[in-house]
Amino acid sequence: MGTLVLLRHGESVWNAEGLFTGWVDVDLSTTGEEEARKGGRLLYDADLRPDIVHTSVLRRAIRTADIALNAADLHWLPVHRSWRLNERHYGALQGKDKAQTRKEYGDDQFMVWRRSYDTPPPPIADDDAYSQVGDRRYADLPPELMPRTECLADVVERMLPYWYDSIVPDLAAGRTVLVTAHGNSLRALVKHLDGIDDATIAGLNIPTGIPLVYDLDDAFRPRTPGGTYLDPEAAAAAIEAVKNQGKK
Amino acid sequence: MGTLVLLRHGESVWNAEGLFTGWVDVDLSTTGEEEARKGGRLLYDADLRPDIVHTSVLRRAIRTADIALNAADLHWLPVHRSWRLNERHYGALQGKDKAQTRKEYGDDQFMVWRRSYDTPPPPIADDDAYSQVGDRRYADLPPELMPRTECLADVVERMLPYWYDSIVPDLAAGRTVLVTAHGNSLRALVKHLDGIDDATIAGLNIPTGIPLVYDLDDAFRPRTPGGTYLDPEAAAAAIEAVKNQGKK
Repeated sequence: MGTLVLLRHGESVWNAEGLFTGWVDVDLSTTGEEEARKGGRLLYDADLRPDIVHTSVLRRAIRTADIALNAADLHWLPVHRSWRLNERHYGALQGKDKAQTRKEYGDDQFMVWRRSYDTPPPPIADDDAYSQVGDRRYADLPPELMPRTECLADVVERMLPYWYDSIVPDLAAGRTVLVTAHGNSLRALVKHLDGIDDATIAGLNIPTGIPLVYDLDDAFRPRTPGGTYLDPEAAAAAIEAVKNQGKK
Repeated sequence: MGTLVLLRHGESVWNAEGLFTGWVDVDLSTTGEEEARKGGRLLYDADLRPDIVHTSVLRRAIRTADIALNAADLHWLPVHRSWRLNERHYGALQGKDKAQTRKEYGDDQFMVWRRSYDTPPPPIADDDAYSQVGDRRYADLPPELMPRTECLADVVERMLPYWYDSIVPDLAAGRTVLVTAHGNSLRALVKHLDGIDDATIAGLNIPTGIPLVYDLDDAFRPRTPGGTYLDPEAAAAAIEAVKNQGKK
């Protein structure tokens, strides 16, 4: 029942600098732009032609979709954008250096903030330079929906309504759907699809710029658990690299 | 009742080479990309913030919107794309050199094809290298809607349903609407808005990359006939330049 293609945005300027990003709207780095082009070419070479694309409202995902689809000659696809596909809100850590945070708070606290399923970082203050309160793109969000910090459980909760209400109907119509989003919003989706438990999801990394393809059954569950990367070798190498983030 | 902003795409590779383009999906030139960025900065500097954007399904309009909105920090806007906003289909002239066509067929025939309201160029053959028959993005168009050639009257007829059904409802909700499209689809819209007669529209040119702003009344008609360009001097200069096209 439809084919789902997940694409994590390429390297951002802050990824390159080792800063926590979350909802801060940084751009792709030149490397990230090249990753997006490669992702588009992988789609094109695999003859995989999405019918529609969904993205977050963050520049790095939007530009990844634009660049990848342009490379795949699919720039004309209908596109939908939602805050529900945004990266995890990193709370008070947004804008902070990852390695320095690890040093300051210790390995254990660092890993809890990065990877525990249900412990969010401290909330961001509304007057923090990296707060999104007052950002016009979230003007329609009532205060109780506007996150000040999120753990992965929070991301699952706010992402799933978009999966059920906006993506599943496209899949039910037999469409091939591309979702261009972020490390944690895609982990949240993969957790749901593959039925991964709260502990195991901590060890799952999704590489940037390599399309991950799920063929779905009538219940919108994967026919092949874990899906299939279009470039499995590059995916395996990239997964290793993500694991080493913050270890500098 | 809402504000309408029209933005004609920047120079394309074929504009630069003096070829008839129509529905052929050529990319922006480097100059065209810069025009798009300038258009976005004009919006930003005028504090004009569209709430939604409509484009054609052609790369040069889509990329103009992407680049302009990225420059205006509005990359996250909802976007809708429709073939009804496409450039006029130039029939058998698509891919042909403008100056050479003028020489071959004479000034009178050339001007009839370029600017008569209701005489289309000869239709394009389905097996012409520049035909769009079989292009996947038009797969949902029944054969009777798929143009083989168009005069401006044809563009008005196929564009207006999109104006009434997809753009007016956004304006009626009080939104500021950006339409990023083409010389002739925008001329068709301006003809309707300003009530320009079939003869007079021949002399109207819309410059590339300069936002044209219409404040609309309750009947969705301009409060100021002709609207207002965000950079009136550059607009006047560019209108002159378009008039001289094909005179090389």
